[in-house]
Amino acid sequence: MSYAAFKSEVAKVNDILCAVNLLTWDSRVMMPPGGVDARGKQIATLIGLARDIATGDGLQRAIEEARAELSGVAPGDIRLLAVEQAADAIGTLSRIPASLVGAAAELKTVSQAAWSKARAANDFAAFAPMLERTMDMQREIASAIGYDDHPYDALVATYEPGMTWNRLRGLYGELREALLPLLAEVKEANVRAEILDRAYPVDRQRAFSSLISSRFGYDFNRGRLDDTVHPFEISFTRSDVRITGRFRETWLPGGLFAVWHEAGHGMYEQGIPEEFSRSVFATDFVNLYAVGGASFGTHESQSRLWENRIGRSRRFWELNFADLRKTFPDQLSDVSAEDFWRAVNAARPGFIRVEADELTYDFHIMLRSEIEAGLMTGEIRVADLPSIWRERIKVYLGLDVPSDTLGVLQDVHWSAGMVGSFPTYTIGNIMSSQFFAAARKETAVELGLEAGDYLPLKTWLNDNVHQFGRSKSPSQLLMDATGSDLSTAAYIADLAHKVEELTE
Amino acid sequence: MSYAAFKSEVAKVNDILCAVNLLTWDSRVMMPPGGVDARGKQIATLIGLARDIATGDGLQRAIEEARAELSGVAPGDIRLLAVEQAADAIGTLSRIPASLVGAAAELKTVSQAAWSKARAANDFAAFAPMLERTMDMQREIASAIGYDDHPYDALVATYEPGMTWNRLRGLYGELREALLPLLAEVKEANVRAEILDRAYPVDRQRAFSSLISSRFGYDFNRGRLDDTVHPFEISFTRSDVRITGRFRETWLPGGLFAVWHEAGHGMYEQGIPEEFSRSVFATDFVNLYAVGGASFGTHESQSRLWENRIGRSRRFWELNFADLRKTFPDQLSDVSAEDFWRAVNAARPGFIRVEADELTYDFHIMLRSEIEAGLMTGEIRVADLPSIWRERIKVYLGLDVPSDTLGVLQDVHWSAGMVGSFPTYTIGNIMSSQFFAAARKETAVELGLEAGDYLPLKTWLNDNVHQFGRSKSPSQLLMDATGSDLSTAAYIADLAHKVEELTE
Ligand SMILES: [Zn+2]
Ligand SMILES: [Zn+2]
Repeated sequence: MSYAAFKSEVAKVNDILCAVNLLTWDSRVMMPPGGVDARGKQIATLIGLARDIATGDGLQRAIEEARAELSGVAPGDIRLLAVEQAADAIGTLSRIPASLVGAAAELKTVSQAAWSKARAANDFAAFAPMLERTMDMQREIASAIGYDDHPYDALVATYEPGMTWNRLRGLYGELREALLPLLAEVKEANVRAEILDRAYPVDRQRAFSSLISSRFGYDFNRGRLDDTVHPFEISFTRSDVRITGRFRETWLPGGLFAVWHEAGHGMYEQGIPEEFSRSVFATDFVNLYAVGGASFGTHESQSRLWENRIGRSRRFWELNFADLRKTFPDQLSDVSAEDFWRAVNAARPGFIRVEADELTYDFHIMLRSEIEAGLMTGEIRVADLPSIWRERIKVYLGLDVPSDTLGVLQDVHWSAGMVGSFPTYTIGNIMSSQFFAAARKETAVELGLEAGDYLPLKTWLNDNVHQFGRSKSPSQLLMDATGSDLSTAAYIADLAHKVEELTE
Repeated sequence: MSYAAFKSEVAKVNDILCAVNLLTWDSRVMMPPGGVDARGKQIATLIGLARDIATGDGLQRAIEEARAELSGVAPGDIRLLAVEQAADAIGTLSRIPASLVGAAAELKTVSQAAWSKARAANDFAAFAPMLERTMDMQREIASAIGYDDHPYDALVATYEPGMTWNRLRGLYGELREALLPLLAEVKEANVRAEILDRAYPVDRQRAFSSLISSRFGYDFNRGRLDDTVHPFEISFTRSDVRITGRFRETWLPGGLFAVWHEAGHGMYEQGIPEEFSRSVFATDFVNLYAVGGASFGTHESQSRLWENRIGRSRRFWELNFADLRKTFPDQLSDVSAEDFWRAVNAARPGFIRVEADELTYDFHIMLRSEIEAGLMTGEIRVADLPSIWRERIKVYLGLDVPSDTLGVLQDVHWSAGMVGSFPTYTIGNIMSSQFFAAARKETAVELGLEAGDYLPLKTWLNDNVHQFGRSKSPSQLLMDATGSDLSTAAYIADLAHKVEELTE
């Protein structure tokens, strides 16, 4: 009965965290303005309960008894894996003292408010003291978790198990070397950018992006699409996986690609097997978050794959532009599939990460990662961030940052105490190309893409990525699915091929 | 620190129960079809956690220490009241063994499925075994809770503290005696019923019912209105109180009055004082339900007051019919305010409780209460229900029940293990008239109603009902607000006056 006890405690934690996900979704999609304060307390209470159970004696005892019960089974047994994976993650969670967790949560509230004001006023100095305290606390958390080589490793690994700053630096170096020349080349590409900011009624944008999401394989019977300020995906087990979008009448790609991005995340969660529901393999014990994806980077690989590898491909628009034109006959009467594809691939260095194109996006991530790593060792000081930011953006993208609002103050992450999550965006980009290349080795996938039938690709992802939930590490998942660990080659090849097509 | 510990444990329970309310709301309003199974488990886990905390040693110790800490304070101190009220409710909750709670929850699932099938097939015999088991279990629960006089008392009191079958019988007798002659009289009233089932576009019904809800005083900044199959109200503290409606194009009053009914419930919850948020006075520990209203009957008094005492009054339509006609100019071009008011007050005995008018509604409740009381003592047997039902409906409403689907199988309550809640509908009707009569003694209220300004009435309800949350018993609340305990006089007077107006 001890493995059963273990399973049932884990299921409880997962249920609580799914409820937290719903409280979060609702607060961003449905909640009336008055509800904010009470909602914050409700979420804090549930997270606290989840933590209490996860780090409590009951689960610890169940883990030990399950180990004893399973002492005779074969080493690869999934139950053993479940127990050891939970023990490991709970170990990390337990090493962060409750007092530190509480202090971080309190600081987050005031720090986010300070950041919001500072950004509006373009006043970094007003935010700096909060940011210093946040970074001190993150350093404390890194020490509490522990690391071999670099304090940043401890934090990065909470989002991307197994990743280190040393490996990231290697990957970033390869990307810089390959992307800088591509970026120089693509500037000459011929683009009618103005076709994207005509007036596209929002309800028809929503309809078209839903139609394509269904074509990709997102299941609306186990999901729904709503409007929010910042698009996101969230799940309450595989059977209820919701996505949101944001549509602006005069910026067509904003709405479309965000929905396909979130649908990519959503298909991952919808593809978690039923038997993993409420299990360790659908629970992130370190971040106390109900999720079926193996890591933040792996998750991002799925969203980027559908958004960029498919949604921004030439073949996709050759096949689907006719439907878009049917949706917007007046707006697109003078536009060809080729024009449209070129326009949604326009590359131009800019200040804002979330508006960056494929060729410049990763530079924004490198910059942030380097700053985070430097802050964690103390080699970089908070006070110097504006100048360091300016310096590096100039080197990477050749731009002069006119204000901190367009620079170091643009992202919410640091004010929220998130250090170590930025690299997962680039990791996701890299992985997306690796998975995509491996999938295309199957004839059915390739023929499907050629014909506009996305089911073979989705099925390949189901079979090689989704179905394993969190039961494989990101590295193992990549190795098994693609034959190699994280490697920039496929991603660089995809971007080089894109530039080649664009400059034809 | 012990009263503080008590408060914080209670707040935790309230937070969990608010999360349960959101899980419930979402499952009825937003959840995609796939989500059902997982949602049921999430709700069960959270209710289990709330029960564990409520009946756990930690809260018990905090209660005892709080008693010690408060031993010197004045007897009426609100903190003492909070502690003793919690202790009392938790006492009731603790007397129901966890095994019985679990068995009841399991039975509910299969019983509801059986009821649903039996109703569709008009096959009471197929449902009877489940109903027998449900009633056995309710008898067990009644014994576990304990009672002085009648087993039904134990169950009724979980919904309406202090109420007994003996008192109910007295009230029912008074109502029967007064209403039967009124019902005979009103049949002669002159009504153009067909004006209500013209084609009324649903979006305009929603807009008009929202407009009037706002006029009544329901605050949409702390609430929202959505569509569901069965309208309801639910709250996540006073700052987020949601209502739902159901609109059918060819049945105008269905949508309007349901929304005003739910808005009445909603205003009660929005009127709970901020300092009661997350406290004993906003938590039903017996039913493990986050709610600020004093009892089910008290809650129903607020919904019925706005729905019937206001929404079905002649003066209301004299004042507001012009806006309705502006909303539906074509449909209502040949209809007067008087026609409309008469139509929405048409009284006619029918088989279905939820479609019953004001004059016949309580007979449906009496019938159910008598059956429930008889089942609890064993004087009535499940097998005899169809015939007993037929017999009593004939006596009360003069109708011959053509099928059990229109008779004993019509309500979901018994299959869900709810025994003792039906009386609260009639208690609510009675109370609504008592509160209304007391409020109208204030000149400002009366002048407001005359002028279509509902703020004075709402303010009176805020001051005399809502602001006390669950800190007064229903009886105390009535005594303080109206000068008398539960009494049928005002309700009978309201109905008699309505009949008089209708037969003018
Ligand atoms: Zn993403
Ligand atoms: Zn009601």
